[in-house]
Amino acid sequence: MSKPMSKFIDVLSDSTGETAEKVVRAALLQFPQAGVQIRLHTRVRTKEVARPVLERAAKEGALLVFTVVSPELREFIHSATAELRIEAIDVIGSLIGKLGTFLDREPINLPSAMLPLSDEYFRRIEAVEFAVKSDDGKEPRNFRKADIILVGVSRTSKTPLSTLLAQRGLKVANLPLVLGVPLPHEIEEAPSDRIVGLTIGLDQLCEIRQARLRQLGMPPETNYAMREHVRTELDFAHNIFRAHPEWPVVDVTGRAIEETAVIILESIHERNRAAH
Amino acid sequence: MSKPMSKFIDVLSDSTGETAEKVVRAALLQFPQAGVQIRLHTRVRTKEVARPVLERAAKEGALLVFTVVSPELREFIHSATAELRIEAIDVIGSLIGKLGTFLDREPINLPSAMLPLSDEYFRRIEAVEFAVKSDDGKEPRNFRKADIILVGVSRTSKTPLSTLLAQRGLKVANLPLVLGVPLPHEIEEAPSDRIVGLTIGLDQLCEIRQARLRQLGMPPETNYAMREHVRTELDFAHNIFRAHPEWPVVDVTGRAIEETAVIILESIHERNRAAH
Repeated sequence: MSKPMSKFIDVLSDSTGETAEKVVRAALLQFPQAGVQIRLHTRVRTKEVARPVLERAAKEGALLVFTVVSPELREFIHSATAELRIEAIDVIGSLIGKLGTFLDREPINLPSAMLPLSDEYFRRIEAVEFAVKSDDGKEPRNFRKADIILVGVSRTSKTPLSTLLAQRGLKVANLPLVLGVPLPHEIEEAPSDRIVGLTIGLDQLCEIRQARLRQLGMPPETNYAMREHVRTELDFAHNIFRAHPEWPVVDVTGRAIEETAVIILESIHERNRAAH
Repeated sequence: MSKPMSKFIDVLSDSTGETAEKVVRAALLQFPQAGVQIRLHTRVRTKEVARPVLERAAKEGALLVFTVVSPELREFIHSATAELRIEAIDVIGSLIGKLGTFLDREPINLPSAMLPLSDEYFRRIEAVEFAVKSDDGKEPRNFRKADIILVGVSRTSKTPLSTLLAQRGLKVANLPLVLGVPLPHEIEEAPSDRIVGLTIGLDQLCEIRQARLRQLGMPPETNYAMREHVRTELDFAHNIFRAHPEWPVVDVTGRAIEETAVIILESIHERNRAAH
């Protein structure tokens, strides 16, 4: 096997490859700047389609990561990769095997893209649409229908948090806090146990806003990013949070939205547990 | 081990648990109606926090699926699950091991939530915000900034497809086709190699729209869901697609948005390959 100029990981899936790609990207975080390229091969359901992918992987010394549910195709990939001396990782095979034993059932062995769409799928789609339509306080009437309402000043990650939580099937609305603008009556009428405040450190917020202005080609000395103004805005938000002690307040400083989302869910569970 | 009334899968992670949960849900699709419950344990980073989770899993005969990057904690979980006779699956451990060999590097062994946020992360967040702001043709000026513009009649999955593709870092805008309404000039001025048409079968579209009306509490004999009207709307869309033969047209009928998203990406790659 000659040493390739660039390293490749071939992700091969009988469906969309989302799961395998997610696992590979998570593992690659442990090797920063590894400069490896991921090549995605989706909807691979026959040996004929799989073979050229494996042959190229062998020739270029690529690593193969696969999620395939058909036992025949999985078996073919296992034996072909052994024969071609490809380093291969089966992301889902042993889990399906162990689940079969654990649940005392046979797997149906159908690629997920070929399965009928579940109720959970439709709930998720509906939640995403709800989040997009209810972004930025645009539909205050939706507050009372929401599972979660995120409240915070500009650049506290309200929008990406809303769509991320929506993918878990939760209907999320969000409301920007704008200096001097009173809360809409719809928020006071919404179930307060669904409202979560978002806050962020002054330094990071100034930085994010300055970057935002640069991106928009606007001068950095706009009020939006000026330290004194930003501090006044955060004070305004904190006063609102103090007036609503039943809202948990989550600090997003230095956190990826995936982590903040988990903290929001934990804080809601905790409040519900405390209430019961 | 006594037979539990309900079966549990404990997902344990040192970060958000997103990856492990995704793998478990993908595998569970192979066991429909298995009636198993997933319990998520996030940000578990010490033996002290892990131990009670493992003990409860042992007591209740739960399956343990974990993603932990610290070698010490991983080692502890491996030996504790062996001792407590818990069936356990390490989703990421062997992949990290193989990647270390493949890349000839040492993993940094830091939970992903503790790593600095990458450029790719910020690109993704920006893309999600772009998609939400550019939904439903609301910001026609964004068409020329978009990587992908989705065009189709109501209920062809434009919104959930836009946010899903945005999570891959693509800036996606979408434009609803409304019977009799001409295309905005901004779409004719946008790079045509970024535009994708969406279509759907007449029967399924009528069904989806009838369900939508029921949900909104509106009478099913509204034009929106009447077969003749829906057919006219689809004809209107197809005429627009015919007038723009350079737009690939993707049929969403019977497909999950994850699959449609992959087909959209494939069709764009193919067009780009053909163009070069």
